[in-house]
Amino acid sequence: MLREAAVVGVGMTPITAGSGRNLTDLFIEAAKQALDDSGVDRIDALYVGNMMSGFLQQQEHLGAMMATALGREGVPAYKVEAACASGGVAVNAAVKGLLSGLEEIVLVGAVEKMSGFTTPEVTAGLMMAEDRLKVASTGVTFVGLNAMIAREYMDKYKVTHESIAQFPVLCHQNALDNPKAQFRKRIDVQDVLRSPLVADPLRLLDCSGIGDGAAAIVLALKNVAKKFTDSPVEVAASTVSSDTLSLYQRPTITTFEASRAAANRAYKAAKLTPKDVDLLEIHDAFSILGVMALEDLGFADKGSGTKLLAEGECAREGRIATNSFGGLKARGHPVGASGVYQVAEVAVQLKNEAGKCQVPNAEVGLAQSVGGIGSTVAIHILRGMS
Amino acid sequence: MLREAAVVGVGMTPITAGSGRNLTDLFIEAAKQALDDSGVDRIDALYVGNMMSGFLQQQEHLGAMMATALGREGVPAYKVEAACASGGVAVNAAVKGLLSGLEEIVLVGAVEKMSGFTTPEVTAGLMMAEDRLKVASTGVTFVGLNAMIAREYMDKYKVTHESIAQFPVLCHQNALDNPKAQFRKRIDVQDVLRSPLVADPLRLLDCSGIGDGAAAIVLALKNVAKKFTDSPVEVAASTVSSDTLSLYQRPTITTFEASRAAANRAYKAAKLTPKDVDLLEIHDAFSILGVMALEDLGFADKGSGTKLLAEGECAREGRIATNSFGGLKARGHPVGASGVYQVAEVAVQLKNEAGKCQVPNAEVGLAQSVGGIGSTVAIHILRGMS
Repeated sequence: MLREAAVVGVGMTPITAGSGRNLTDLFIEAAKQALDDSGVDRIDALYVGNMMSGFLQQQEHLGAMMATALGREGVPAYKVEAACASGGVAVNAAVKGLLSGLEEIVLVGAVEKMSGFTTPEVTAGLMMAEDRLKVASTGVTFVGLNAMIAREYMDKYKVTHESIAQFPVLCHQNALDNPKAQFRKRIDVQDVLRSPLVADPLRLLDCSGIGDGAAAIVLALKNVAKKFTDSPVEVAASTVSSDTLSLYQRPTITTFEASRAAANRAYKAAKLTPKDVDLLEIHDAFSILGVMALEDLGFADKGSGTKLLAEGECAREGRIATNSFGGLKARGHPVGASGVYQVAEVAVQLKNEAGKCQVPNAEVGLAQSVGGIGSTVAIHILRGMS
Repeated sequence: MLREAAVVGVGMTPITAGSGRNLTDLFIEAAKQALDDSGVDRIDALYVGNMMSGFLQQQEHLGAMMATALGREGVPAYKVEAACASGGVAVNAAVKGLLSGLEEIVLVGAVEKMSGFTTPEVTAGLMMAEDRLKVASTGVTFVGLNAMIAREYMDKYKVTHESIAQFPVLCHQNALDNPKAQFRKRIDVQDVLRSPLVADPLRLLDCSGIGDGAAAIVLALKNVAKKFTDSPVEVAASTVSSDTLSLYQRPTITTFEASRAAANRAYKAAKLTPKDVDLLEIHDAFSILGVMALEDLGFADKGSGTKLLAEGECAREGRIATNSFGGLKARGHPVGASGVYQVAEVAVQLKNEAGKCQVPNAEVGLAQSVGGIGSTVAIHILRGMS
């Protein structure tokens, strides 16, 4: 029989800066929520997503660390890392664990603690996602690399910053209804354009912030899942693609080929097309990435992603509800954890448990987790089973 | 049909200190060797094992980085980490990838670059395997933790340092025949006892050194493997167990419960017992760990591991040939890479291609990769298929 995986429980901490909480404390809050939500009485393995704990906290070995903190030492446990896609690839590793037949119920948790450091420290940490010797050493920052993309995109497709700024505006709008979101404040396009310049053309409100958070999901084989929940959410596809580590190694910088490739493999695996997707959680670490994702994932032609926003198609009531909990921009982006937040949020939507964030009649959702400057992309397509 | 995994190619760099080589350079040498050795024309995924690159090199995202350097950007690629067991758990993740049915041929490579730093820097890096807030912050070092174990073991079982020192003597003896080994120098028990004290009772020659290295293996589903090689080596079992992150959290410190648990699960999965094992690669980062492993893996009663050494049973011609290429002590211990060296070495032995290091008539081999102070253990049992 073909094995299939399903989400049976989720947990998420609020995302905050300056909480003073440590990695374990954050992780355990999310993990316990997910375990309680699922009702499972055991886990066969633990997968931990995280990017920066070695650099920022001088702490590795989060697998055994979190297994111990959960009182579940003994279980197979390890960390999976792919920069800001660490959460997404941890879910992928967990899905493989289930499909391998070696595990039936697994916990995936991801955590990042970014606050409590200076901006240069966090900036250096984020640049670990790019090539240290050839790129990071030049002094360019991650927002700088994204600014290059934004400028090229705007020039190439004659798209204005005003148009792109609709993306963070949408995210802030959605986050108003999410009590766990880091930035619950309505903004408009002019707020974005008038916010402080960070790396031309990107301004402060084009950029996700620095925050601490953890998210967790319990995954189980579908036949096992049905024992614990009446409404498991099927993992219809879990794919990962890579691209060159560095931006300068690519023929074009206005498309993330890894997004296209991972999404196309996911659609094929799920036997679905973008037309079947009701709900998107996409990796808008910077506004331009949100717009590009709409295109790379197959929802708009190249250069026309902002039209979807202008036409209201990405709103919760639109054709393709996007970042319904606020996305990286407004829900928050604790980098290695964001990929698990996304999958958790899609699952909550498909179970119709999203409260004020609920997207009506959503049956299929897609989460896109991006590592580095589009160098790793993990795609998950989830489908409600009720 | 039950899927099964097999090793179809291996690659290993020599282990050295002060080479000035970078992570990519090391990784690619091993990966290309493994690919050439296997004859495969594609890989479906890349798994990278590494512990300290975030801390020492300010470099994460090794999955996409190494995929790019191999000219294979596009493949799913991510890093797997569990301190010094990173290599072992990366192999475990790769085996799951194959058994999941999502991949048919995968590359696992692991790398660590430890030289070029001060001893305090490397010491701090290694302590990332323990609890930063509660243990590392006290100033205790990893050799210090192992010294506690050694002292307790010697007191509890009335075993002398002379007896334990047989372990590094054996490893140095075996490394004489391994051109890739870091320490190719014969030593005797008195050399160990007279070497500089590091953390009482452990002396310099009780401890593995600081080195740079990378190892890689190509794994394939068994039915696919047969297209590429006449002598694939079956992965009969791949297990991971965890234990508490910290030593102080355990009822006893002279047994690594994670070793026992992972080994017992592996024997069960492979339908084998310790009696069936001809060949061991064990994690002797410190001499005491080599002795404890002989016991925890089922080859000697508790407290009597050194008797096996005294009786010559661990020599290449003995009943249970141990660390035939020199082990962590003498082959070298580039921490996150060691687990892949071990599996590669077992595979080479079972293919009867170990040259002067060859163990006669070996059919079944076991590799034990340990992370932290016994907090993660990965066990692989390999079986020749010829």
